[in-house]
Amino acid sequence: MFDDLHEECGVFGISMESDSQDIIKNLYLGLFALQHRGQETCGIAYYKDNAIKTLKCEGLVSGEFFEKLPLGDQSCAGIGHVLYPAGGNSGIKSAQPLFFHCNKGEMAIAHNGNIPLANKIKTDLIKSGSIFQTTSDAEILVHMMSRIQGEDFDTALVDSLAKIRGAYSMVILHDDEIVAFRDPNGFHPLSYAQIPGGIVFSSETNAFDLLKATNWIDIEPGEVVFCKRGKIVKKQRFADKGRVAQCVFELVYFARPDSVVFGESVQQARARMGAMLARRMKVKPDIVISVPDSGNSAAIGFANEAKIPFEMGLIRNHYTGRTFIKPKQELRMEAVRIKLNPVKAIINGKSVAVVDDSLVRGTTSMQIIKMLRDAGAKEVHLFLSSPEIHHCCFYGVDTGTLEELISTKKTPAEIAEFIGADTVNFLALEDLKACLAKPNEYCYACFDGDYPTEV
Amino acid sequence: MFDDLHEECGVFGISMESDSQDIIKNLYLGLFALQHRGQETCGIAYYKDNAIKTLKCEGLVSGEFFEKLPLGDQSCAGIGHVLYPAGGNSGIKSAQPLFFHCNKGEMAIAHNGNIPLANKIKTDLIKSGSIFQTTSDAEILVHMMSRIQGEDFDTALVDSLAKIRGAYSMVILHDDEIVAFRDPNGFHPLSYAQIPGGIVFSSETNAFDLLKATNWIDIEPGEVVFCKRGKIVKKQRFADKGRVAQCVFELVYFARPDSVVFGESVQQARARMGAMLARRMKVKPDIVISVPDSGNSAAIGFANEAKIPFEMGLIRNHYTGRTFIKPKQELRMEAVRIKLNPVKAIINGKSVAVVDDSLVRGTTSMQIIKMLRDAGAKEVHLFLSSPEIHHCCFYGVDTGTLEELISTKKTPAEIAEFIGADTVNFLALEDLKACLAKPNEYCYACFDGDYPTEV
Amino acid sequence: MFDDLHEECGVFGISMESDSQDIIKNLYLGLFALQHRGQETCGIAYYKDNAIKTLKCEGLVSGEFFEKLPLGDQSCAGIGHVLYPAGGNSGIKSAQPLFFHCNKGEMAIAHNGNIPLANKIKTDLIKSGSIFQTTSDAEILVHMMSRIQGEDFDTALVDSLAKIRGAYSMVILHDDEIVAFRDPNGFHPLSYAQIPGGIVFSSETNAFDLLKATNWIDIEPGEVVFCKRGKIVKKQRFADKGRVAQCVFELVYFARPDSVVFGESVQQARARMGAMLARRMKVKPDIVISVPDSGNSAAIGFANEAKIPFEMGLIRNHYTGRTFIKPKQELRMEAVRIKLNPVKAIINGKSVAVVDDSLVRGTTSMQIIKMLRDAGAKEVHLFLSSPEIHHCCFYGVDTGTLEELISTKKTPAEIAEFIGADTVNFLALEDLKACLAKPNEYCYACFDGDYPTEV
Amino acid sequence: MFDDLHEECGVFGISMESDSQDIIKNLYLGLFALQHRGQETCGIAYYKDNAIKTLKCEGLVSGEFFEKLPLGDQSCAGIGHVLYPAGGNSGIKSAQPLFFHCNKGEMAIAHNGNIPLANKIKTDLIKSGSIFQTTSDAEILVHMMSRIQGEDFDTALVDSLAKIRGAYSMVILHDDEIVAFRDPNGFHPLSYAQIPGGIVFSSETNAFDLLKATNWIDIEPGEVVFCKRGKIVKKQRFADKGRVAQCVFELVYFARPDSVVFGESVQQARARMGAMLARRMKVKPDIVISVPDSGNSAAIGFANEAKIPFEMGLIRNHYTGRTFIKPKQELRMEAVRIKLNPVKAIINGKSVAVVDDSLVRGTTSMQIIKMLRDAGAKEVHLFLSSPEIHHCCFYGVDTGTLEELISTKKTPAEIAEFIGADTVNFLALEDLKACLAKPNEYCYACFDGDYPTEV
Repeated sequence: MFDDLHEECGVFGISMESDSQDIIKNLYLGLFALQHRGQETCGIAYYKDNAIKTLKCEGLVSGEFFEKLPLGDQSCAGIGHVLYPAGGNSGIKSAQPLFFHCNKGEMAIAHNGNIPLANKIKTDLIKSGSIFQTTSDAEILVHMMSRIQGEDFDTALVDSLAKIRGAYSMVILHDDEIVAFRDPNGFHPLSYAQIPGGIVFSSETNAFDLLKATNWIDIEPGEVVFCKRGKIVKKQRFADKGRVAQCVFELVYFARPDSVVFGESVQQARARMGAMLARRMKVKPDIVISVPDSGNSAAIGFANEAKIPFEMGLIRNHYTGRTFIKPKQELRMEAVRIKLNPVKAIINGKSVAVVDDSLVRGTTSMQIIKMLRDAGAKEVHLFLSSPEIHHCCFYGVDTGTLEELISTKKTPAEIAEFIGADTVNFLALEDLKACLAKPNEYCYACFDGDYPTEV
Repeated sequence: MFDDLHEECGVFGISMESDSQDIIKNLYLGLFALQHRGQETCGIAYYKDNAIKTLKCEGLVSGEFFEKLPLGDQSCAGIGHVLYPAGGNSGIKSAQPLFFHCNKGEMAIAHNGNIPLANKIKTDLIKSGSIFQTTSDAEILVHMMSRIQGEDFDTALVDSLAKIRGAYSMVILHDDEIVAFRDPNGFHPLSYAQIPGGIVFSSETNAFDLLKATNWIDIEPGEVVFCKRGKIVKKQRFADKGRVAQCVFELVYFARPDSVVFGESVQQARARMGAMLARRMKVKPDIVISVPDSGNSAAIGFANEAKIPFEMGLIRNHYTGRTFIKPKQELRMEAVRIKLNPVKAIINGKSVAVVDDSLVRGTTSMQIIKMLRDAGAKEVHLFLSSPEIHHCCFYGVDTGTLEELISTKKTPAEIAEFIGADTVNFLALEDLKACLAKPNEYCYACFDGDYPTEV
Repeated sequence: MFDDLHEECGVFGISMESDSQDIIKNLYLGLFALQHRGQETCGIAYYKDNAIKTLKCEGLVSGEFFEKLPLGDQSCAGIGHVLYPAGGNSGIKSAQPLFFHCNKGEMAIAHNGNIPLANKIKTDLIKSGSIFQTTSDAEILVHMMSRIQGEDFDTALVDSLAKIRGAYSMVILHDDEIVAFRDPNGFHPLSYAQIPGGIVFSSETNAFDLLKATNWIDIEPGEVVFCKRGKIVKKQRFADKGRVAQCVFELVYFARPDSVVFGESVQQARARMGAMLARRMKVKPDIVISVPDSGNSAAIGFANEAKIPFEMGLIRNHYTGRTFIKPKQELRMEAVRIKLNPVKAIINGKSVAVVDDSLVRGTTSMQIIKMLRDAGAKEVHLFLSSPEIHHCCFYGVDTGTLEELISTKKTPAEIAEFIGADTVNFLALEDLKACLAKPNEYCYACFDGDYPTEV
Repeated sequence: MFDDLHEECGVFGISMESDSQDIIKNLYLGLFALQHRGQETCGIAYYKDNAIKTLKCEGLVSGEFFEKLPLGDQSCAGIGHVLYPAGGNSGIKSAQPLFFHCNKGEMAIAHNGNIPLANKIKTDLIKSGSIFQTTSDAEILVHMMSRIQGEDFDTALVDSLAKIRGAYSMVILHDDEIVAFRDPNGFHPLSYAQIPGGIVFSSETNAFDLLKATNWIDIEPGEVVFCKRGKIVKKQRFADKGRVAQCVFELVYFARPDSVVFGESVQQARARMGAMLARRMKVKPDIVISVPDSGNSAAIGFANEAKIPFEMGLIRNHYTGRTFIKPKQELRMEAVRIKLNPVKAIINGKSVAVVDDSLVRGTTSMQIIKMLRDAGAKEVHLFLSSPEIHHCCFYGVDTGTLEELISTKKTPAEIAEFIGADTVNFLALEDLKACLAKPNEYCYACFDGDYPTEV
């Protein structure tokens, strides 16, 4: 309903020296910190009494999931997952972690990413006898492992991963062991850190903050980490170091500002993007406002650079939950207005620079600009802290179809006219790169079509 | 909590000539009619837009499941399932139908029964590369089919079933096709019948009544029926006609009295068992009462044969749902008293014949007899419309352990003393057989230990 | 939806010598036993920390109410209520006990009955300044009490009750005191009994059985009982002994068969009504069946008297909860068929006597008879264990409008033709009276229009 | 759990020329906009079929309330309410609007505020015969009105209001009429505005924005507005213009920044308070951060005035709902850390000015400062955009007890030491006044103890 990009997941894991009641609580807190990466389903799997137990629910971790949380259970290893609805998959059916019992033992998997050639691999596997029960790409991996006879779990995993290209950051619970890895291009983040008596794994570092975990380390692209009873027991490469192609949208939009992703403070990276937009600015707005919350960091960077006052010109209603509007058609068209309201006293009579992270279809921006005009804005200049999106993503970001992407059909000037802005200003790709410490280690395929893998 | 036998499931299916909105409603009604066969989870799978959709919920079909029922969806084929909690499996994880995608296509399976050698088969399959995601025996079948290369679905199914002994009555949704079969021994019932424009499949015929389905036919033991677009397209044997061994407890206890199971009216079969008990009676009770609802039919047959008045001496509270007492330890011990209450005016000063279907652990009976004594019963004679249970069941009935079965440790006289009855009277095995039209076509293993298959 | 009579409530109360945790559990069990008297809402009020606490919920006592039950709270006095939806009132708004704070102190009231002149009294009270917050007749009483200045609670209560005619059986929680009373005509039942350390009050005695309460005593019509700290401290008449007019439908239909109501065993009274019908029978049915569960007791009495076999010819599905069909129009017309199913093997080819408690609109009976005909019944004779209903009730029974009552428009022969029965046989009013020990102490107004009070 | 001030309510109302389906939707949207004023319960009352219907639920308006919303109902007048839990009152029992039926007709009332002498008035009313069913102060008003015989609703209302001092902003639904008024001191806001075909009333103007309502007008302190069928039919003073004493905390903390309250843009007023703090600043911080969201507006004003960069140094998790932590003691102490997380890259090595709205008990601030220190802050200076709270509020703000208020026991320097800050800087009362257009029209009692009414 809202015109933004979606990602599919957040993953989390904990390994402890010995059984502890804290593990369930910490899995909960970890998923709570990652909630922004997926609100459709949540779930955990943990090792108890020589078996893997799971709990998976629809909705937020603070909802039914929290009610059912087995806070009294003791365990030494567990993983968790939050899911964004992707494509046709939704509801409890898609919830992870997935459970598998094969000749490499029992395991549960939590997956973040998308494997472009998954369907091809899956078709081949099915042809030769594999059975799939879900639509998750993670299931492919288990089938590949299971077919490698005579090898143990570790070897089968490494051998299988070596054959899979695409975006996957996964944690696996294998008996009392946690295994975590990132694809060879390192599309999505995955890190680990220390807590007293254990190790935690997380898609983002803000979960480490909540758990007071320290000394975090990014898992390398193409690296798998084996962790048992609270200790890293092995780190191993399963692919040669090739092109690192980290999803730049993690920095632009997905990650929480308080996370450090790909070595960058998300907050600071966004502020630099905003500042860069300010340096290229050709208009003279009176104030800078953001589209909260996604545009906040860039807008502040923009304002500080431009020496133009930053103002809270749009107020966001934070009581808009996952279902606040879904079931009743009558309220659909009010969705943007329910979520955002301009502050007339701030906006009226001003030339306003509005900073947002990206422009996908343009429908939400059109409504925001209409609201700002109604509130008396003299001029409205839209600034996007990312370039024009010309291509679809195959690595786990839901960009919609090519047809839906407004930049595939209109120039910035045409977009400005279409959405009612005075000007629309994208961050140039080169400028975006200039904001990053290691610009060569990112995927910019949605901007330039240069896909790091076969798609 | 209540001292009775449990079975695992009811299965249901519908195939229609063409897409219809009625199919979802009729799946609901079918499961509603089979609700007594399982109250833990319920679910449906149906074919829509060239794919299989599923809805699975915890609890009764009239609960969350009903709220979420997609009554507006059109479909030409669907299956349904209700589940009784078996062993350690419970909650939404165990809900069926199960979904599989393999080289024989997409399919959903609903299963009633138990395959004693399942774990052995499963271990072998896993060793050679199969991956299991559930603990249902139904998953074995799909793996076996998937490994048969170069054959179509029908052939692979028939070839696989030929290798599986045990108790299974299943319906499979395979694209727009419904496939239904019973194991070679025919442990549990499965029948089909006609509705205008289609065919329905059901564990019990009472669902046919609700749907006004006519001309029902039992699927033969070892027979598979293929049904497409509302028509039976093929019937095929997958095993030689061997020993038919239908679960006699379907007649004694599980099935609804208004069903016809294994060619017998359940109501009438139970009445004959009650009448037989009356013929063997050596005491002279004043009145006959039943333990409602399971003892009703036998008690009426008993009373009519013995020419002793049948009375409602125990009143059952029907507001005791699945969870009415579960979560609060404080109320556990009141469970039997909450469910049943004697009518003092009827019981007081009388010699009472109490008719129940079977005696498992004896704990409930003990409480009932205590209540009847407190209500003033002069004598209490317990009559069971089945023999003493000396052996565990491996075919889908949860008898508990050998240790728990009271008849493995005590004679009827000792049981009478233990539970406080004046006499305890079991139906003799030969007498039970004499109540059945085809006594050789039943499994009596829980009474005599003669298991029809390897266990 | 179902064509039967409705009553409005069940009331319950407990007074204990000293604070006890058992009181909440026992209020729950008491309401559980009275659940058949109302499934729309349930609630309790209890005395704790010098204040009255309440919990009121929609639905069954085993639902949300049970989840929220404060089982850890200690108290020495509490009351409870279950409600049937009456007239336009429904949902949590109508839930009782009601709470009031007035110059007689704080109190909570649970009410069963209806006061025909309530609206007149209420209008007068409102005119002279009273404020009403509910539509319950119980609120009138509190206003009358509150206006009596200079008197204490007890005197004000007795003085007020002396002025109110109509049907009311109430329990009041007044601080740590329980006060219970029945209207001067004694329309609805209310009794009390002893438990160790306390006294319990209940609409029906089956709740006493569940709580192992002994020595129960009916509160007299026109009598109020004051109970404090587990002891009856005072019993007082508030009206002269006039015409006792107990609702005969409590015996015919409302009460549980295991209760003793108005000095009669409900089960036995119904059996006598059935036997009386049998004595007047002019046809020769092969079998007797009941419409379960309401017709069971009468049918058994009928069969035992007529020496015709009693059979379970209709099986009732007990999974039909309060909401099982409500929200979906698609399933409304299936309601009777979902609830009841004939046993063809029993019915086919037989002349069947069907026994039910009463005939209101005839719509359900019509469907039942259709089902029996479809099951092959040769003849269907409907027997009702009560006379023709010619008049509306103003004392708490929802008979619908005069227009809806089939007997106001049709003779038994016309009814038989309308509903498809061969014959329809009502119990004659004189015969009904002959089944009762004290026939002069009942209200038969719905049959003969002789209302015991101004209406 | 969180250390902030609470207010009790938001009220809303709509009057339309003629019946419309939009009214229910608009009541929903209005309450959605006011959700920040109360998350414990929500409810509506509306006029339909010559009667008042109500719907009241626990939780957010987007929860159970939304599920049950009668979107199909037509009406011409309705009111709504959201409630913050105050004192011992919570749960559905406290939900408003309250319904009353008295000699002035049927009415429903939604109330925001607190009447300090309510208990005294209530005791007098009870003594002389009034019955109270709730603990809401609004009930007093109805009793006073009801006792005024021989006058119509309007006169009785005006006469009664004339006698009540305290904080109350109320909307009443009286048949198809909406009546709205503010107490003579005007403690809490209440305004109305025009929509096509009608009038809307709201505690805050942000609801007008969402409904596209225009030309809003504040109801005057001591003024009552009668509105019928979409038109203001009468405006009347019920008290002489005395001291206007509007709650300054509405501007400091309660109201949404996009509202205009007491003639002030909330956002701008807060920015001025922040700027004033900056002007008085004696330290030289490197950056300014806010405690989101309550400190945002002041922090931005502070930063813009001080020419120090505003940064988002604390990130708030917005998935913390009403119950996210309540039921599990294990998670209580993590509450602040779950809600807020510092951005280390921003904080590390910096001298930080932290801006929040007020300091109540100091417990939350202590944890925040600890987190900032852990994130590497060199210095932490806490700035509060309000003065020290030395007195309790009796007008609807829950300040806790005198004992709990940290400023009653410690100087700013002692507070700084206690909570771990380098300095703690309150806005001086005179400075606060200097930020307001009409400083004499506010209540500052919590700062200076000068209560505008008897308390």
